[in-house]
Amino acid sequence: MTSTEPVAPITTDDYAARMRRVVADASAAGLGGLLITPGPDLVWLTGYQPTAITERMTMLVLVPDQEPTLLVPTLERPDAEGAVGAPALSIVDWPDGADPFARAATLIPGTATLGIADSAWALHLLGLQDALPQTSYRSLTTSLPMLRAVKDAQELARLAAAGAAADATYEQILGVRFAGRRETEVAADLARLLREFGHEQVDFTVVGSGPNGANPHHEAGERTIEVGDAVVLDFGGLMHGYGSDTSRTVCVGEPTAEIREVHEIVRLAQQAGVDAVRPGIACQEVDRAARRLITEAGYGEQFIHRTGHGIGTTTHEPPYMIEGEEQPLVPGMCFSVEPGIYLAGRFGVRIEDIVTVTEDGGRRLNNTGRELRVVE
Amino acid sequence: MTSTEPVAPITTDDYAARMRRVVADASAAGLGGLLITPGPDLVWLTGYQPTAITERMTMLVLVPDQEPTLLVPTLERPDAEGAVGAPALSIVDWPDGADPFARAATLIPGTATLGIADSAWALHLLGLQDALPQTSYRSLTTSLPMLRAVKDAQELARLAAAGAAADATYEQILGVRFAGRRETEVAADLARLLREFGHEQVDFTVVGSGPNGANPHHEAGERTIEVGDAVVLDFGGLMHGYGSDTSRTVCVGEPTAEIREVHEIVRLAQQAGVDAVRPGIACQEVDRAARRLITEAGYGEQFIHRTGHGIGTTTHEPPYMIEGEEQPLVPGMCFSVEPGIYLAGRFGVRIEDIVTVTEDGGRRLNNTGRELRVVE
Repeated sequence: MTSTEPVAPITTDDYAARMRRVVADASAAGLGGLLITPGPDLVWLTGYQPTAITERMTMLVLVPDQEPTLLVPTLERPDAEGAVGAPALSIVDWPDGADPFARAATLIPGTATLGIADSAWALHLLGLQDALPQTSYRSLTTSLPMLRAVKDAQELARLAAAGAAADATYEQILGVRFAGRRETEVAADLARLLREFGHEQVDFTVVGSGPNGANPHHEAGERTIEVGDAVVLDFGGLMHGYGSDTSRTVCVGEPTAEIREVHEIVRLAQQAGVDAVRPGIACQEVDRAARRLITEAGYGEQFIHRTGHGIGTTTHEPPYMIEGEEQPLVPGMCFSVEPGIYLAGRFGVRIEDIVTVTEDGGRRLNNTGRELRVVE
Repeated sequence: MTSTEPVAPITTDDYAARMRRVVADASAAGLGGLLITPGPDLVWLTGYQPTAITERMTMLVLVPDQEPTLLVPTLERPDAEGAVGAPALSIVDWPDGADPFARAATLIPGTATLGIADSAWALHLLGLQDALPQTSYRSLTTSLPMLRAVKDAQELARLAAAGAAADATYEQILGVRFAGRRETEVAADLARLLREFGHEQVDFTVVGSGPNGANPHHEAGERTIEVGDAVVLDFGGLMHGYGSDTSRTVCVGEPTAEIREVHEIVRLAQQAGVDAVRPGIACQEVDRAARRLITEAGYGEQFIHRTGHGIGTTTHEPPYMIEGEEQPLVPGMCFSVEPGIYLAGRFGVRIEDIVTVTEDGGRRLNNTGRELRVVE
């Protein structure tokens, strides 16, 4: 693969088809419409991403039998008109000083139950609740969680390209020096490599060395990496608008028997999670499959997060691989499988691949080796 | 001044004092408490900024006669504990799979009216509304808009340092080549200079040449700047955690009589806006003072945005200088005064300084010349 292979553009017609499909999905879910504010849902539906997300309300109103309408601040109208999906929309602008909720109220059925984007601002939801007191609202996560979860061929191609670029980044990082350098220096190498291999955006470059690896949300700090450290690497971002997210844990010099053992448990747990993937099983089964091995090995209390999350135009989205999530897997869904063991104050191990559901199982979009690699 | 002068750190005691003050302010405003999610309010109150704002709820609960409590996802607890304000907080964590709204419900008076951060996610507000059906919610913009508006001496020192760094950036950019280079190249120069002069974060570097300057939200594009262009420069970011935001409009080579005339109208309007600043007048009076000159000159329809916005730990916050905003100015408030004229398809002019309200007037935090400068 080369990470700079061209991908087919997403066209106005593609966006129009996505909008038609989600209006139908919303109706089937008992919703009277959808309200989409700036963020990954809006990008996915229209290609439009305002330069900043601010207190000035931008909102896509999708209601059956009504043209999709994008409400935008007047001074952002030219930007909105430039979006690839714009010709499939009616754009309505509101100037500074006008009441955007009154404008929105003319577009929204006054007694509907509406799905609203998870990250819509409370400021705007409260304004709508005041302007339309007979409406009710449900977050997309609760009402239509699988809105963007099933990827089409164009999207899979982008996710595969992003995964291949992340793989190339990992292969290269194995050759850099770890011992004696700060975590932030290795993190900068990861960011540079992701960009070199085609990412337009780097979202995270975790380098958790020694005890820092035991904090799963540690990013990268000023700690100097030492010989003997296990180092958790977890990195990703966006390429052609779609996400990568992969983790490997390496050892600086020869690993101790304990690091080897914990790494092997996580490797087998990750394999078990991937092996569980097939259409029709509940998301929680992926979590259970990975967790079972870790629990049986005596480290259940040290696996302190869910096994995975969806990925698409964001690096964190439904479906979630977590106990209690009964959503069945569907071909085209893409998500991480990333068990870990975290020994507080000592070290951590995490292994993560993006997996897509196929007709008869799962296929990894990350394909570098998962064995414990020794770095210098 | 040099932009790398040390500034006094904000201490745990400072954060504790801020939290005490806003609880009192909230009570005075008739609120039973405040719910603060990640973003500038949380940074200002606690110094805590999660590495990412996600679907996992983090929320500071401030209620009278109750210790400030930060609800965080379990795997982000170590990060939260590292915040400077953390010793002044009780931290309660919730693991993946638990119901964060049920945890929050134990901390929130069940029949209260609560102020909630503007940018709190709809997902979380709806979860709270479900878990606590007798509570009601108001956005901070509507209920306590001046929460962070009045800056103390520490904050003013930071805003002044950021303004001085922006001024130094402008002085340097006058010496770079404009003609024949793309807007994005000059924008990259602005970003580099802001960082050189001490900014840790660059939020925007608008370079609007010729017709692009007539779109007030244009950032910087691939257009090659030509001799004769008016070029709107609008740039800023964060330094020591506080914002800069300044605009100047320059001309590449000798300006036409029309560019000179429009620029002079904007310059006088901006001066009139600054001259209007004094304690006790309503925010809208600043807008009116600037707008009056532009309207009288016949360009009222081409001044399509409000005159200004507050600045602090963000580059866009209350108070807003806009018709209808009757909030009186108070010493210590800091905001932009930035009138503009936008001639669609041709060119635009905007001039912007940050101004702080003093005991007897206003004082600019940007002090470079506002006359029309010719660049090469």
